[in-house]
Amino acid sequence: MTTEDFRSAKNIATFYPPQRILMGPGPSDTHHRVLSAMARPTLGHLDPVFANMMEEIKDLLRYAFQTKNKMTFSVSGPGSVGMEMCFVNMIEPGDKVVVCRNGVFGSRMIENVERHGGVAVVVDDKWGEPVDPQKVEDALKQHPDAKILAFVHAETSTGVLSDAQTLCELARRYDCLTIVDTVTSLGGSPIKVDEWGIDAIYSGSQKCLSCPPGLSPVSFSERVTNLVKNRKTKVHSWFMDIGLLLGYWGSSTRTYHHTAPTNSLYALHESLVMLYEEGLERSWARHRRNHEAFKAGLATMGINYVVDEQYRLPQLNSVYIPDGVDDKAVRDRLLADYSLEIGAGLGDFAGKVWRFGLMGTSSRVENVVMCLNALETVFSDMGVNLKRGTAESAAHQSYAENPMP
Amino acid sequence: MTTEDFRSAKNIATFYPPQRILMGPGPSDTHHRVLSAMARPTLGHLDPVFANMMEEIKDLLRYAFQTKNKMTFSVSGPGSVGMEMCFVNMIEPGDKVVVCRNGVFGSRMIENVERHGGVAVVVDDKWGEPVDPQKVEDALKQHPDAKILAFVHAETSTGVLSDAQTLCELARRYDCLTIVDTVTSLGGSPIKVDEWGIDAIYSGSQKCLSCPPGLSPVSFSERVTNLVKNRKTKVHSWFMDIGLLLGYWGSSTRTYHHTAPTNSLYALHESLVMLYEEGLERSWARHRRNHEAFKAGLATMGINYVVDEQYRLPQLNSVYIPDGVDDKAVRDRLLADYSLEIGAGLGDFAGKVWRFGLMGTSSRVENVVMCLNALETVFSDMGVNLKRGTAESAAHQSYAENPMP
Repeated sequence: MTTEDFRSAKNIATFYPPQRILMGPGPSDTHHRVLSAMARPTLGHLDPVFANMMEEIKDLLRYAFQTKNKMTFSVSGPGSVGMEMCFVNMIEPGDKVVVCRNGVFGSRMIENVERHGGVAVVVDDKWGEPVDPQKVEDALKQHPDAKILAFVHAETSTGVLSDAQTLCELARRYDCLTIVDTVTSLGGSPIKVDEWGIDAIYSGSQKCLSCPPGLSPVSFSERVTNLVKNRKTKVHSWFMDIGLLLGYWGSSTRTYHHTAPTNSLYALHESLVMLYEEGLERSWARHRRNHEAFKAGLATMGINYVVDEQYRLPQLNSVYIPDGVDDKAVRDRLLADYSLEIGAGLGDFAGKVWRFGLMGTSSRVENVVMCLNALETVFSDMGVNLKRGTAESAAHQSYAENPMP
Repeated sequence: MTTEDFRSAKNIATFYPPQRILMGPGPSDTHHRVLSAMARPTLGHLDPVFANMMEEIKDLLRYAFQTKNKMTFSVSGPGSVGMEMCFVNMIEPGDKVVVCRNGVFGSRMIENVERHGGVAVVVDDKWGEPVDPQKVEDALKQHPDAKILAFVHAETSTGVLSDAQTLCELARRYDCLTIVDTVTSLGGSPIKVDEWGIDAIYSGSQKCLSCPPGLSPVSFSERVTNLVKNRKTKVHSWFMDIGLLLGYWGSSTRTYHHTAPTNSLYALHESLVMLYEEGLERSWARHRRNHEAFKAGLATMGINYVVDEQYRLPQLNSVYIPDGVDDKAVRDRLLADYSLEIGAGLGDFAGKVWRFGLMGTSSRVENVVMCLNALETVFSDMGVNLKRGTAESAAHQSYAENPMP
C-alpha cells in the first residue's frame, strides 16, 4: 500500500489516552514521578551511566524482595515472561513439579511445566481459597521424586493470599526447590525471600510498584544457579537462558545479550526509589489501611467478599456482584461517568465477581472514597435502596480507627 | 535487610540520565514526541480506548512492513523475543532450517534453531559481506527437505544489507518458508513483505523507528498461520505461542493473555505515526542522504568502510578504525566531551571497527556535522594531521548535491 493510499484509507494521529483511575487487578495508576522518569532521554544500553543505574535496580530489588541473592534483576518482558523464565531454566525433560492451582495463574504454571517437558502433579484448591499446606504435603509425600514446588503467593484472579513461608518450609523438608509468583504481592504484602527460603521468585512492575506494565523483577537463589549450571540439556530458550542473562546483568561483565528497555527501566528504578523512600513496612501498612476503609464502606452496601478475612489480599478486593445488579452495566457506567476502571471476574468468576485493586499509587484515600461514592450512586440509580454517604462515612471511621503506624 | 539498614548502606535517588547523542548501532535517540507519548497516563490493557490504539498500531505496522498480513502486531519484548517467537512457533523437532550467517545475528538464529529442536544447515559468508544467493541455492538444492530459510536483512554487527527479495524468491522456489531479521532496516531501508513474499519478519523499536528499546514488531503470512495451526506438537513456550497471542491481538477477541506494556505501546504508536507522516519513501531517502554526507566527510579523513558500497546500510556505517588510533580512547573522549555515543565492533570486529548509526531521529544533518567535527578534533589531538573543517565542508557539499526528493 502506498503512502498516499494508506493516508487516504486511514486517519491516524497522535494518541492521547484519557486520564483513568485504575482500580482493577492491574495495571494500577502510574505515579507522575514514574511517568516523568520514563520520558527522560534514552541512553545506550551499554553506557556506563546506564550500567550504574542497572546496579541500583538490582540493589533496590534485593531490598524489595528482602534477599541477598546475587541473581536479582528485571526481566525485559511482562510477568508472564518472568514466570516462563523460572520454569524453562529449572525444568529438564521428565522433571516432576508439584503445582498448586487455586486460580488462573496456577493453571498457567501447569501449562509452563508441560510445555517445558516437565510432569505436573496438580494440587487443586477452590478458587478463592488459599493453597492448603496439608494437600501439598500429601503430594510431596506421594511424589518423593518431585523436584520443584510451584505456587502463587497472591492470586490475581481471586484475591487470595497463600502462606508462602509454610509452603517453602514444606518444600525444603521434601527436598524441593520453590517457584513463587508474587506478581500482585510485591510491595503490597510482606515477602521475605531469604527468611522464607524462596528459590525462584518473579513479579510484575504494574501492580503495587505503580510502574507501567512490561517488566518482571526476578530473583534466584544459589540453589537455582547451581541447578542451571549442572543442567544436562541446554535451556530451550535463548532469550530466557539465565546463564546468558547473567553475563549481561552481572556487574563485572556486561556482555551484550539483548538491548535493555532503557526507558522502562528508568520507570522501574523510580518506582523502586519511591518504595525505598516510603519503606516496605509503611507501604504494606498503607495497602492494609486503605483496604480496611474500603471494606468498611462495601459492608454498608451489603457487598460480600469472595475470600475469608484471614486470607484476603488487601490490594485486591474480590467481591460478589450483588443480586440483581448487572455486571457490565455497572463497569461501563463507572468507566464512562467516573473514568474509573474496576476488574471483571476471570474464568469461573466471570459475571459473578468484581475485583477492586488498591495497589501502589492507586491505594489512596481519595480513590477509596471516590469509588465508594460512585458505587452508591450507580447502585441507587439501578434501584437499590441505599442512603447516600453511608459508605464514605464508614470509610472515614475506619481511617480514624486505623491511623498509619 | 531492614529499611533503616538499607538506607544507611545505600544512597539511591531519582535517576537523571545525561542527554546523549546516540550514533551507535541502536538505540537511536528517541524523538521528544515519542518520549512525551510514553509519559501519558497508563490505561488498563483491556480498556476499549487502548484496544482501539492497538488496532491502529496493527494498521501502522502493516504500512511500515508493506503487508496485508492480518497477523501483524508488536511483541511485548525486545527484538530477541521477536526472533525467538518466529523460530519457536515455526520449528518442530527435527525440522531442517537453512540459516545464513554473516554476522552476530545469524549466529543467534542458529542458537534459536538448535534450542527449539531444529537442525541448522549453515550457509556462511564473511563478516561485512552480504548473504550470497548462490550459496543459499546450493544449500537448498542439497537439502530438499529444508523447511525454512532464515537470514538477516540488515546485519547490525557489520552494516551490510542482503538482498531479501532474491533470497525470498529462492526460498519459494525450493518450497521453504522465510524468517527475516529486519531489526535495523525497518523504516531505514525498503522492506516489502508482500511483494517479496516474506513469511515471518521481526524488527525492533529502537533503531530507525526512534522509539525506546523493548518492543518487537512482527508480521506473519497466512502460510505461517497455517503451519502453526497444523503443528503436531505444542509450541514449547507459553508466552511466545502465536496461537494464544492472536486471541489477545485479534480485533474481535481480545482474550486476556498477558498485560500489554501500555506506555511502551504509546511510544511505538507515536513513532509509527511519525513514520506515516513522513512517509516511508521520504524516510528511506533521508537515511540515504545523511549517509552520503557522512560518508563524504569520513572520506576526507581517510576512513574506509568495511562493506562494499553497493551493500552498505545507510543507517549503519561500519568503518575500519584508522591505524594508530586507539579505539577505546576515542570512544571515551567522544562520550565525555561530546556526550556522543558511537558503536564498538562486535565479535571479530572488536577493536578494529566502529559502527556509526544514523538511524531514525539520530539521522539528521546536525548529527552528521557534529560527529564529523568531533572526530576531526579528537584525531587531531591524537596527532593525526588533518585540516579542521574539511570533513564538514565535504558533508555540506554532499547535501547540496543530494537535495531531498
